[in-house]
Amino acid sequence: MIRPVYWAGDSVVMIDQKALPHEERYLTFQDYRDVANAIRDMTVRGAPAIGIAAAMGIALGIGRSPASTPGALADEFQRICTEFATTRPTAYNLFWAIDRMTDRFRRLCEDNAGIDDVRRALRDKAVAIAADDIERNRRMGAFGNTLFPHGGGILTHCNAGALATGGYGTALGVIRALHEAGKPVHVYVDETRPVLQGARLTAWEMKKEGIPATLIADTAAGACMKQGKIDGVIVGADRIAANGDTANKIGTYSLAVLAHAHGIPLYVAAPFSTIDFTTKEGADIPIEERSAEEVLSVGGVRTAPDGIDVYNPAFDVTPCHLIDAIITERGIVTAPYDQGLKTYSTDEE
Amino acid sequence: MIRPVYWAGDSVVMIDQKALPHEERYLTFQDYRDVANAIRDMTVRGAPAIGIAAAMGIALGIGRSPASTPGALADEFQRICTEFATTRPTAYNLFWAIDRMTDRFRRLCEDNAGIDDVRRALRDKAVAIAADDIERNRRMGAFGNTLFPHGGGILTHCNAGALATGGYGTALGVIRALHEAGKPVHVYVDETRPVLQGARLTAWEMKKEGIPATLIADTAAGACMKQGKIDGVIVGADRIAANGDTANKIGTYSLAVLAHAHGIPLYVAAPFSTIDFTTKEGADIPIEERSAEEVLSVGGVRTAPDGIDVYNPAFDVTPCHLIDAIITERGIVTAPYDQGLKTYSTDEE
Repeated sequence: MIRPVYWAGDSVVMIDQKALPHEERYLTFQDYRDVANAIRDMTVRGAPAIGIAAAMGIALGIGRSPASTPGALADEFQRICTEFATTRPTAYNLFWAIDRMTDRFRRLCEDNAGIDDVRRALRDKAVAIAADDIERNRRMGAFGNTLFPHGGGILTHCNAGALATGGYGTALGVIRALHEAGKPVHVYVDETRPVLQGARLTAWEMKKEGIPATLIADTAAGACMKQGKIDGVIVGADRIAANGDTANKIGTYSLAVLAHAHGIPLYVAAPFSTIDFTTKEGADIPIEERSAEEVLSVGGVRTAPDGIDVYNPAFDVTPCHLIDAIITERGIVTAPYDQGLKTYSTDEE
Repeated sequence: MIRPVYWAGDSVVMIDQKALPHEERYLTFQDYRDVANAIRDMTVRGAPAIGIAAAMGIALGIGRSPASTPGALADEFQRICTEFATTRPTAYNLFWAIDRMTDRFRRLCEDNAGIDDVRRALRDKAVAIAADDIERNRRMGAFGNTLFPHGGGILTHCNAGALATGGYGTALGVIRALHEAGKPVHVYVDETRPVLQGARLTAWEMKKEGIPATLIADTAAGACMKQGKIDGVIVGADRIAANGDTANKIGTYSLAVLAHAHGIPLYVAAPFSTIDFTTKEGADIPIEERSAEEVLSVGGVRTAPDGIDVYNPAFDVTPCHLIDAIITERGIVTAPYDQGLKTYSTDEE
């Protein structure tokens, strides 16, 4: 199974997603600052995977901290968390993971745990978050499987696959579940400019898994829908507001409008760790803008003239009324989302 | 003024649009087969410019033909026209230009013109088609100017500029007219994957002209509309059916659905030579599929894994009900288009 980030010995290991699909290269990190930079530069990306990387980064930082008193360790813990909290502003799972690690740390402090015990417990917690995420993805897959009784043509955007999570995937987890159930599926993969996560990562996962897939330019999605190739759209999420409005990779909103116009259902697949109950609606979600260079170049090749202005939001917000269902590890939630999400949120974590 | 294809001495000269925006390189052709290949490989592209290149290519072929009798010349003429007719199937201006050259040739034969006179007259006709196209673009610009009384944010797709025509442009001709009229305009340039005509060509024209412009990934168009940045969308056309359905660069249909959902007008700017009265509706327009390599790579850099299947239609069809007006050199046509287009078509050619 593809695992984009995992703990090995006393290090954090990542697949270098910037080198895919050409090279399957693994990077080993022993400094938490390098893990934070790997999140910033998208060596690891995808909201759940970012959360896992941050949790492991915190465990790594504390594991290697020179602090010898509980007070010094608490200061260090705060510094490390701040470092991770400033890497990517939109992915809610990042803040969720930092909160889980902070809760664990606080309880250990309250219990007067020794420094070595704190180090071990934080590492175990980070590893558990990763393992738990895979389990959540499999449950999402099982729920999502019921939405496509006959399989069909499924359009996906960006990469919400094994590479974006602990493993298995959210949107691609549902597609894996359909494939494992023996249903015929054909995946239409939006290449997803500017960073091409579809062409580079989703196409790679589908090839590796032997799931039939066709790569298209983002501009061809509307034509594919009109031609009847698409029975459903499944995407992941970077943050879901309390009312169901969903921030996801730039272009998701366009797909949602197109799907709606063609009477095609659009599903969001995401674990509960993506849902931000403190944010009422999509307009309040912070949207990261990234470097102009992402649009001006492809793979280091400059495509546009020098000096042209660029607008490069990394995400957009799909309003909840364009979402047919949110597939979570606790069940399938439909409108009204504010009520549905709240009901499920009372489950144990 | 930018002229993508023109006659010089006894040759056809083109800007190499594949080298833009990095290099402004001119290619000189003396063999009509090389002109045909330049159309095929998109050294020259844009429906009106393809028509002009074909007309000049025919004149070049006849000018250099070894035929010494009218009968041999007629055979050669037919061969050359067939060569051009098979270059790009969707652009209607190509067939329109071949028809204009054929009419001219037929009249010369009927008048028993000498071979040298035929050669000169065909060259003059091709040059006139190019000059006439610029004039038509300027008239379109003047009509289009009335649709934007206050300028505003205008989204355009692909390149329907000077580079796509004899000069000045269709969609970008309207934008030039607004700019010349002193109205504030800000152009949002869709990069237009897979061939990036927006990033490479439209951005270059806007920079050269000093018209304020912002480049976006195609995936950001919906978000820009939702954010209120866009007051109107203007695109060109490769072929317009008798009912107004319009084939244009892949992605135009998606923009039309998005514009409609946001209450933003979408205008098509195209000369009458783009209108195919023999094709009743969009479903009957042949849509060119191009090489998978265009989607798998950018500027020679491979972005997707080997062996992934690709679907790469070069155009899509926007149904007439999503088009607010068609701006032609004879006036602005609105629905019902079948009647409006027919009324104007009775004008002199």
